[in-house]
Amino acid sequence: MLTFDSSGLYGDGLLSKEHFGGERREELQEAMADLQARFEADELGFVDTPDADGASIAAWAEERRSEGWTDQLVIGIGGSSLGAMAVLDSALPDQRDGLRAHFADNLDPESVDRLFRTLNPEKTVVVVITKSGTTIETMSQFWLARQWLVEALGEEAANKQIVAITDPESGELRKLVDNHGWWDFDVPPNVGGRFSVLTPVGLVPLALAGYPIQELLEGARSARDNRQSLSESAQIWGTIAAEHLALADAGYNELVMMTYGDRLQSLVDWFCQLWAESLGKARNRQGELVHRGMTPIKAVGVTDQHSQVQLYMEGPHNKHITFLEVRNFEADRIIPESPPLPRALQHLQGKPISEVFAAELRGTRDALRQAGRPTSSWIFERITPGSVGAFLFAWQMITAVAGELMDIDAFDQPGVEMGKKIAHGLLGRPGFEEYAQQGQGGPDGPAEESRRIL
Amino acid sequence: MLTFDSSGLYGDGLLSKEHFGGERREELQEAMADLQARFEADELGFVDTPDADGASIAAWAEERRSEGWTDQLVIGIGGSSLGAMAVLDSALPDQRDGLRAHFADNLDPESVDRLFRTLNPEKTVVVVITKSGTTIETMSQFWLARQWLVEALGEEAANKQIVAITDPESGELRKLVDNHGWWDFDVPPNVGGRFSVLTPVGLVPLALAGYPIQELLEGARSARDNRQSLSESAQIWGTIAAEHLALADAGYNELVMMTYGDRLQSLVDWFCQLWAESLGKARNRQGELVHRGMTPIKAVGVTDQHSQVQLYMEGPHNKHITFLEVRNFEADRIIPESPPLPRALQHLQGKPISEVFAAELRGTRDALRQAGRPTSSWIFERITPGSVGAFLFAWQMITAVAGELMDIDAFDQPGVEMGKKIAHGLLGRPGFEEYAQQGQGGPDGPAEESRRIL
Repeated sequence: MLTFDSSGLYGDGLLSKEHFGGERREELQEAMADLQARFEADELGFVDTPDADGASIAAWAEERRSEGWTDQLVIGIGGSSLGAMAVLDSALPDQRDGLRAHFADNLDPESVDRLFRTLNPEKTVVVVITKSGTTIETMSQFWLARQWLVEALGEEAANKQIVAITDPESGELRKLVDNHGWWDFDVPPNVGGRFSVLTPVGLVPLALAGYPIQELLEGARSARDNRQSLSESAQIWGTIAAEHLALADAGYNELVMMTYGDRLQSLVDWFCQLWAESLGKARNRQGELVHRGMTPIKAVGVTDQHSQVQLYMEGPHNKHITFLEVRNFEADRIIPESPPLPRALQHLQGKPISEVFAAELRGTRDALRQAGRPTSSWIFERITPGSVGAFLFAWQMITAVAGELMDIDAFDQPGVEMGKKIAHGLLGRPGFEEYAQQGQGGPDGPAEESRRIL
Repeated sequence: MLTFDSSGLYGDGLLSKEHFGGERREELQEAMADLQARFEADELGFVDTPDADGASIAAWAEERRSEGWTDQLVIGIGGSSLGAMAVLDSALPDQRDGLRAHFADNLDPESVDRLFRTLNPEKTVVVVITKSGTTIETMSQFWLARQWLVEALGEEAANKQIVAITDPESGELRKLVDNHGWWDFDVPPNVGGRFSVLTPVGLVPLALAGYPIQELLEGARSARDNRQSLSESAQIWGTIAAEHLALADAGYNELVMMTYGDRLQSLVDWFCQLWAESLGKARNRQGELVHRGMTPIKAVGVTDQHSQVQLYMEGPHNKHITFLEVRNFEADRIIPESPPLPRALQHLQGKPISEVFAAELRGTRDALRQAGRPTSSWIFERITPGSVGAFLFAWQMITAVAGELMDIDAFDQPGVEMGKKIAHGLLGRPGFEEYAQQGQGGPDGPAEESRRIL
């Protein structure tokens, strides 16, 4: 079971029920209708992703695992890695007893070097994920990985140890697949990276790792189908989206997602991409400059009670704190009853750690409420593949509706193009010379304003 | 060498040199004088921390390491763990070839259980760190750890495998030390948790891990002493603090610290505590409600170019992005020259990964500048213990000066008390019953506003 509790968003100085009546109600209905139309025009591919053929992927992965591979090197970045990482980190040990996963989602040269020094090419499958096939970071590392396999195994064997996940028809990686005969899976053309966790992008690495992807899909499907129609279903997502936007309009523009449950930590990273990249936009759909976007912030309880909560309690009234709560854990320990601790701590003795953890969460949440801060909770009865799947689907829907309500395109990312062009220019791509020139505007040596610290 | 480059903070719509003339200049001078007075009154203990006796701690750790311990379980939270974690993660493998460190800085029951199942009590030293000795999370886990050692080794041997770092005189943990004869080190009474990385709080776990703490201290000392006096030195820190505050006043209240260098990632977590907890305050020193505080945000390059940068480029003008740049790495790989990649990627072939990484950083930074966003850079010539020590000291000074300029107390954390009291009340501490009642205001079952997702 997964529940969203928004009662902490309502009250003095926060939201009121009346807020969602009248004009706002109509806005919400219109956004739903628009969303329905886009779904019927096949623009919202992610809504269909819970129907993915998990059984086939699981069977394929089972076969590969029986062939003796022990590790997988997953090369992808952003939406091509965050989903699988998030789900895998939420798994119990026996839900990830397949290939050990190593994600190459950055380009730090020392980290890249270490990967190839520590993995065994004879036992490692390389999974390369990029929809366009032109992602600089991914293709750079993939070309290193391919050479590493070829040097150890020869070209023919290497080709059988590569899995490519990319666009079914277009793109540079697709051309390479066609020439080399690698294993391959399709990213549906109408599903963007950050909405792709329930496509082969997420499912293939997860299945190789031994994760029960069919339960994950089933959770997502249920979250979708527990409502009869897209428009009916959208009312629940629509209200949640509207609550977040109303708070942002009232100045609560930072959304802190604070997890009390270590297995949920990477889900917050996944969420941060979805929320930031979908809703952080310069222009609305009429092309007017609006510079919208709410800042997603990851926090970890109880740890950040001793780091960030002072700011959340006393700083500017600009944060909505949404908690990820877990009602039941799969392991526990009892604080020893003896010998006695000092008096100020004796009440802890004999209590399970889970009870202390829960009290810390309650204390933090209720103190924030007393301080007039808006809080909400995602309550996981347990962390299961089903509840994780439901969480993923829920946030994809909420994000899509929020985009409609904000009148922006939640599915593009025009803001990252200029940085890529400058990088290409600096690296000597023909035709990109002018961007390299623009790049030189930046400081590289000590400028007048530089200060030597050491 | 470590340099701070603020040239990207100046220009149209951002800061101007004139901004820091006249009245502001006087403000800065006053803040410096106040800080000098507080230092002389022994209130700024952290300024002296780079003079710690690293040699003694290193020698003690060397002895312990020769006794056959292989692992250390470091139990501490917030300022009692973030410093050592940050420095240790910045180390090269041969700078951390001592005891493997395991940090118990959260209370997730599954994670706590796993620690005690996977570590070997015969080979593991338990390092418990809490200044007050009443930190619920730390003492709960410490009591578990102590029992775990006693059950495996007997009481006498267990007592020789415990190291306590706490206040030299007061507090509950100090009393326990006196009764049991554990190894112990002092947290200087005038140094708070988040300013304590260069005291035994950070130095003892680091030394046990084999980290060259004397080089770390030397870097911090140089950053401090390269200026002749506290007031002269404070001018560099003062200007940097003033730049950050001027941007915040202009609406750039979110400070994104984006690292291009994996070894620097945990330094950002350390920074986030320092910045949030020191400067996020409800009241100024006259007791007036001000609700100040800038939001620190961690970002990782290049990864977050595919997650957060869309928002940074196009969203609200409310972010200052400060980069952690590394000029030289200790390892690298060359992208293979053959076989040929598709045309759009051929310019990458034959290039080292470090060059691609640097171009990505330049591209992102310069695109942000073109978009009118304020950026700055901390430039590490290399990541060394010295440059890391200088970075730590620099930010402690900048934070202290920022507190003076904001007229708030940068060294307390009153906002976290209420949450602790409610937690104590819920856990049955005598005298705290009323707080438990307050706690019950929060929702625990499905309320009217709760929505079942799955």
